[in-house]
Amino acid sequence: MMILAELLIEVLLQRNVGHVFGVPGDFVLSFYKALEDSDLEIINTCDEQGAGFAADAYARMHGLSCLCVTYGVGAYKVVNAIAEAYAEKSPVVLISGAPGLFEREQCEMIHHKSVAYDTQFKIFSELTCYSAVLDNPETNAQAILSAIYHAMLYKRPVYLECPRDMFLSKIKRPGSMTFKRPKSKTVSLLAAKKALYRRLDSAKKSAILLGTDIQRYSFQDQVLAFATRLGLPIFSTIMAKSVISEQHPLFCGVYQGHLADEEIADDLESCDCILSLGAWMSDVNLGIYSSKLNQKQLVEFNSDSLVIDGHCYDTVLLEDSLSLLSDYQPKTPVFESSFSKPLTSRGFVAEEGVEMTTQRLFACLSQFIDGNYCVLCDVGDVLFSSLSMPMPERSQFLSPAYYTSMGFAVPAALAAGALYPNKRLLVLVGDGAFQMTGMELSTLQRFGMAPIVVVLNNQGYGTERPIQDGKFNDILNWDYHRLPELLGCGQGFLVKDEARLVHALAMADISTDSFTILNVSVPKHDHSPLLKQLAAGLHDQL
Amino acid sequence: MMILAELLIEVLLQRNVGHVFGVPGDFVLSFYKALEDSDLEIINTCDEQGAGFAADAYARMHGLSCLCVTYGVGAYKVVNAIAEAYAEKSPVVLISGAPGLFEREQCEMIHHKSVAYDTQFKIFSELTCYSAVLDNPETNAQAILSAIYHAMLYKRPVYLECPRDMFLSKIKRPGSMTFKRPKSKTVSLLAAKKALYRRLDSAKKSAILLGTDIQRYSFQDQVLAFATRLGLPIFSTIMAKSVISEQHPLFCGVYQGHLADEEIADDLESCDCILSLGAWMSDVNLGIYSSKLNQKQLVEFNSDSLVIDGHCYDTVLLEDSLSLLSDYQPKTPVFESSFSKPLTSRGFVAEEGVEMTTQRLFACLSQFIDGNYCVLCDVGDVLFSSLSMPMPERSQFLSPAYYTSMGFAVPAALAAGALYPNKRLLVLVGDGAFQMTGMELSTLQRFGMAPIVVVLNNQGYGTERPIQDGKFNDILNWDYHRLPELLGCGQGFLVKDEARLVHALAMADISTDSFTILNVSVPKHDHSPLLKQLAAGLHDQL
Repeated sequence: MMILAELLIEVLLQRNVGHVFGVPGDFVLSFYKALEDSDLEIINTCDEQGAGFAADAYARMHGLSCLCVTYGVGAYKVVNAIAEAYAEKSPVVLISGAPGLFEREQCEMIHHKSVAYDTQFKIFSELTCYSAVLDNPETNAQAILSAIYHAMLYKRPVYLECPRDMFLSKIKRPGSMTFKRPKSKTVSLLAAKKALYRRLDSAKKSAILLGTDIQRYSFQDQVLAFATRLGLPIFSTIMAKSVISEQHPLFCGVYQGHLADEEIADDLESCDCILSLGAWMSDVNLGIYSSKLNQKQLVEFNSDSLVIDGHCYDTVLLEDSLSLLSDYQPKTPVFESSFSKPLTSRGFVAEEGVEMTTQRLFACLSQFIDGNYCVLCDVGDVLFSSLSMPMPERSQFLSPAYYTSMGFAVPAALAAGALYPNKRLLVLVGDGAFQMTGMELSTLQRFGMAPIVVVLNNQGYGTERPIQDGKFNDILNWDYHRLPELLGCGQGFLVKDEARLVHALAMADISTDSFTILNVSVPKHDHSPLLKQLAAGLHDQL
Repeated sequence: MMILAELLIEVLLQRNVGHVFGVPGDFVLSFYKALEDSDLEIINTCDEQGAGFAADAYARMHGLSCLCVTYGVGAYKVVNAIAEAYAEKSPVVLISGAPGLFEREQCEMIHHKSVAYDTQFKIFSELTCYSAVLDNPETNAQAILSAIYHAMLYKRPVYLECPRDMFLSKIKRPGSMTFKRPKSKTVSLLAAKKALYRRLDSAKKSAILLGTDIQRYSFQDQVLAFATRLGLPIFSTIMAKSVISEQHPLFCGVYQGHLADEEIADDLESCDCILSLGAWMSDVNLGIYSSKLNQKQLVEFNSDSLVIDGHCYDTVLLEDSLSLLSDYQPKTPVFESSFSKPLTSRGFVAEEGVEMTTQRLFACLSQFIDGNYCVLCDVGDVLFSSLSMPMPERSQFLSPAYYTSMGFAVPAALAAGALYPNKRLLVLVGDGAFQMTGMELSTLQRFGMAPIVVVLNNQGYGTERPIQDGKFNDILNWDYHRLPELLGCGQGFLVKDEARLVHALAMADISTDSFTILNVSVPKHDHSPLLKQLAAGLHDQL
């Protein structure tokens, strides 16, 4: 026999989860006490939203994470983060406390309750791949193990709700449970193999387009092995930026339709055989409909299917379809890889007295960062601008590029800081997004993390202005660089010209005790070249 | 014919809604443009959470409000505020943009989408009393009018989702639509009348316990009329604090079980006939199970039933059951009201060099506020402490005392400021809650509001410490009084003793251009008497 809380803690530790994000509340306090007494570290944030984004980031970087909140007022604050985790394929284990079974009989109206007791369960069942209420001592252990299993298999969030009088209840220690792992359908796989090899044999110009699933399922080494053997050039989607080192000799750039780099787009689109490996055909990945890729060019390796010439071979798992590539022996010795040109930073020299622009900021940052940095990027022009920044290390760049929720980056730094204590953290965030969750710098400080936060300050919702402008895109222009005075720690710089930017980054680089915040002030209507293109596309969709 | 966006705007203006809270996003931008060109004022907040709390507050104070957000990343951020609005009976009209019907055919994976296109609709259907997707030109007008009708009738939030290519679509101007209003069941009402009058005739000692529904349905004048005629003493629940003026001669105090004022509790509980008018029997209202009220004493006037001696007369609407009281002619001329003692502020004189405590802070505030103040109160010890502060004006005090979500008060001030431009705003908030949404001071400043914000700084989650303490109750100790330096406006005071408090409040009182923030520093383990009692009760529930 053991205590339910112990089992929750044990299964998380066994799977290498070392931290729990959340905010305590009375329906989950007894579990918080148990967490504090365990080897898991609690990272309690200013607001549950911050914990939610941090847990999503942690799960994407580490393969599993835990988010722990109270009932109602806690859980409903992380709905957006869990929706994001689902969209971005991020295995977050959400544990919510709930009113005790006993007290529900005492009173129909308990604080933090909205509508009915099971409303919260119903809502999270819509947004997770597994959900359970731990209200049955007979099945609680099984539910906990099932939740972990589903999260890790499907890379989606799961939901466990525990009435507070159950956290310390006794349950039977579960034996080793066997879960049926999905398998490829043999017939389908054989047919797919034949079609794939025929397709490869007849290809004139081939390339790889790497997507998010390669990172989520850790297939990078396997992909690089056969790409190298076959001499295949590698592009990545926006969402999968930094899935492999962007200084790898085979790497040719981040594909984003025709929004930005025409050369990269032309190179990829000139291929007659594009092996799309775990890439998601989202509107952002396809450059807001500017992409000219068509189904005849694409061979789509999805997580559980392979699509060749528009024919879908279903129940073919990614691990098996990739193995087909590993096993493939080309008729000609190697493919031609004519456009291999890894991203490199162009030389940046600060010009005296020149007003900052978004484009020059990122030219400078491209030169500044090295393999020791982990980059957490919010959405908006910071994301568009950073796509061409070279990331020397694998998985060095993280952003919610599909779901595109503002306010992700500062809290995400909590995850990176917890996982990689020896790395430097670079947070790229617009002023609008910073006003949403930027105060989690407070939490970063509490846990001894010293990020460099670059606030791209274009005085409001810069991404929306070129789509549809109005007073509603204005926000108060904070003196972001004076945040140290409120928090009593850190250093801040107001950056209005390039010389100041270089100086501030140099000061940030040597400051490892507390955060550095750069308030980089650019003109209100200054946009990166990519944003200009993208806004035109988005305006047409209004 | 008219444009859908015009109809939305028209019905809101017709119902006296003057402001819309939200954050713009591309799926709702065309509607934001239409709003900007209308007579509605957009109040765009730092984060959608702030807009959600503000909209809840506005609806409670004004009878209807509008919250307008983008799909996914916007809407999912306000789930908690909508859950709160449902719990607290607050008629918020939530309008969410959504991907256009046309573009859904172009691409399966559009940014901001999680799970399926209808997931968001399903989720909000759980948390609202009416929900619709405006995807059908034939029924859109009807859906909009139905939503408003339901919100106003049931005092609950409603949900309207509009694909972005429908906002500017043409619809037929709706004629006057008739909605069937619920009615009391005649048989039930007659039986209830008989039982009620028999009950009143035999009562020896009667009193009124006022609840939230009296405020929501605006029955205050009617209640005061018959209470005065019959000489009935009036108590209010915690949730309904300030439902009538607390200096009314009949007012006897806020009932909170036996958590705090024993005299008030004894007075009410000594009655053999307690007319509970629209009071909700929640755990907080009942003083966390410390209440000794029993069903034999209570006559419960609910929004659609009347309960006498444990017998429920269903389908008896509150308006009709209250009319029974208005029509009632007592056998004896008037009731005895022996314990009428309206709340009054006790004289507060600052003592030199005395460290601040929570109790003394509220003694001082009790003396400070007058009828010109609107008080927005967060949850935690600020709520418990303020229950005995006398509110000279009706509806002067607002707090989410049932749902008890942290972070409500600062954003709620946006609603009060918009509705009552001539009132002063007093925000009472703990340091923990302030770290969640306090930065909406930025929005208050943008819209020319000048609240006085009192941060009760007990260095962390003071309400939780006596229930279950741990490091997880610690937060960074911000220099809250230095916020003016970050925002570039306002004034701040660090308050460590009583003389400083009096000085700071005097300075705040004369400052009407920008906010004043008081960082009131009390010892970490200082608690109000009520919190001590309450924590003991809550600890037992762990």
